[in-house]
Amino acid sequence: MIKLVLIRHGESLWNKENRFTGWTDVDLSENGLIEARKAGEILKQNGYAFDIAYTSVLKRAIRTLWIALHEMDLMWIPVYKSWKLNERHYGALQGLNKTETAEKYGDEQVHKWRRYVDVRPPELLKTDDRYPGKELKYSELREDQIPTTENLEDTIKRVMEEWFQEIAPQIKEGKKVIISAHGNTLRALVKYLDNISSDNIVNLNIPTGIPLVYELDDNLKPIRHYYLELDGKLPQDAIPKTFKE
Amino acid sequence: MIKLVLIRHGESLWNKENRFTGWTDVDLSENGLIEARKAGEILKQNGYAFDIAYTSVLKRAIRTLWIALHEMDLMWIPVYKSWKLNERHYGALQGLNKTETAEKYGDEQVHKWRRYVDVRPPELLKTDDRYPGKELKYSELREDQIPTTENLEDTIKRVMEEWFQEIAPQIKEGKKVIISAHGNTLRALVKYLDNISSDNIVNLNIPTGIPLVYELDDNLKPIRHYYLELDGKLPQDAIPKTFKE
Repeated sequence: MIKLVLIRHGESLWNKENRFTGWTDVDLSENGLIEARKAGEILKQNGYAFDIAYTSVLKRAIRTLWIALHEMDLMWIPVYKSWKLNERHYGALQGLNKTETAEKYGDEQVHKWRRYVDVRPPELLKTDDRYPGKELKYSELREDQIPTTENLEDTIKRVMEEWFQEIAPQIKEGKKVIISAHGNTLRALVKYLDNISSDNIVNLNIPTGIPLVYELDDNLKPIRHYYLELDGKLPQDAIPKTFKE
Repeated sequence: MIKLVLIRHGESLWNKENRFTGWTDVDLSENGLIEARKAGEILKQNGYAFDIAYTSVLKRAIRTLWIALHEMDLMWIPVYKSWKLNERHYGALQGLNKTETAEKYGDEQVHKWRRYVDVRPPELLKTDDRYPGKELKYSELREDQIPTTENLEDTIKRVMEEWFQEIAPQIKEGKKVIISAHGNTLRALVKYLDNISSDNIVNLNIPTGIPLVYELDDNLKPIRHYYLELDGKLPQDAIPKTFKE
């Protein structure tokens, strides 16, 4: 029985401030730190251990992983960080307050940016201080890999590259894997694993800090999935059946 | 100009308790956490950045690195963890109080175990709970790689394997490297880099939590080395000249 564990990072400082975050490298809030610790406790309580971990290059996901690994006494396992697991890039909206943005552009437009898989927010200029090409962290990417904005399809594309090139081969070799990432990168994985339609995936919310377990067969097809909750509550279904095709 | 930075983990819970630690996976003390934070601050204050980090699979070294990387806003760089950078294995002395051990075996014997490069403490039995072969962490090692005790020469051998096979090639490729490790593993590196005799290396102490910078030429031969101190004090020589051959 293969088990893959997904975890969405705990609350960040900007989740709290209701700002579009994307690739902005904000840290966890106090509450987010607690969520991360709980996630580690839950996994430990349920007897989980991992051989290898994947995360993004954004500190809210890395820190969530580090804290969880500490709780599980697994600080020593290899951790691979990839920009391909970064949150969806939110273009020129990054840093803006979501309510103010809705007032400025209208609810309908903001809804399209947030919930249509093929609509991209306004692009960042390459001269913008927020352009990832200005960061050392992305200096090894080709220019065409560095986003100025993304729709969910763009995000899915790079997440699946990471899945097929790096993560799935490790799972097939028998490694027990945990992935600490972001709302949209985990949506991408869940969309693929459960074969969820584009229309449905945008409405799927994965809660922060609660380990989502996928039991997979030898071809990495899901048998079932469930969230792990503290204090031994029974696992509940992560994704309502209506989302399955 | 190549700069390599070495850092010895901050004070651990057992440093405080005056116990032989070796491969026992004890965490940092409160003071050790502060030392780690300061190390990161010093490096940041002096404008250091790194492309890649190496550490052991022991949490006191990993945590020191993680905290320093956090301070430098470099949580995203690749971190490689290797058992070959673990502290010297202290055999059956691990966990014993140093004073009590001296009372039991005599000062002279303890001195030999601690300061002779070719003397090994009593071996751990493979049935002992402290035997590393019982830990998941070392499950991928061959049995002949798993120590039951080590002298400094044994430690040096594996550290240099890690140096030549993993670390030096990265430095030669132009990567800026930081190594977070232990008293004896850093002794091993310093012995090699500065060509220090076996008689002298055992008396060299590298302080905890203070970044030790090696400036190297293109052949990775040291030009000079110095510690970085907080608040812009001038660097001072790390290793007294009498230790050089």
